[in-house]
Amino acid sequence: MFWVIIGVSAAILTTFSFVPQIARSLRTKSVKDVSPITLFQLSTGVFLWIIYGIYLKDAIIITANFVTFITLAIVLFLYFKYRKFTAK
Amino acid sequence: MFWVIIGVSAAILTTFSFVPQIARSLRTKSVKDVSPITLFQLSTGVFLWIIYGIYLKDAIIITANFVTFITLAIVLFLYFKYRKFTAK
Repeated sequence: MFWVIIGVSAAILTTFSFVPQIARSLRTKSVKDVSPITLFQLSTGVFLWIIYGIYLKDAIIITANFVTFITLAIVLFLYFKYRKFTAK
Repeated sequence: MFWVIIGVSAAILTTFSFVPQIARSLRTKSVKDVSPITLFQLSTGVFLWIIYGIYLKDAIIITANFVTFITLAIVLFLYFKYRKFTAK
């Protein structure tokens, strides 16, 4: 039970870790300090973790990384949406 | 062997995913669009993944998240270093 709590806590924190970034980008409509390479690289890595989680048959790894992947896609969408309106 | 490549690729991509963010922050000396809540939340989550990886006895999960944790600490350091010099 302890390990389930650790795993689920890790999953919840990382899963929703980009929600504050989404909120900030929506509020400021500015993304110039955010690295798009970091976003692309992390999305690709998280996708591979999903595949690796399927191999390990670990539902926590699969679910957490899947939702992280979705939130990263939203941050990337906002990045390209606000990039043109961003001051140099 | 295929699954080792998937796991190692996932580890390398996520491990070094914040290196481009470190490079960008060092170059621009501006961090105002980066969410500090995202950085803190992700650091905590990654730390719990290390603990969970120790439970699973999975060296890839442990190593990848450990190095990610270090790079996130560097981004946080740069965040607090450059925050005061950042334009509103």
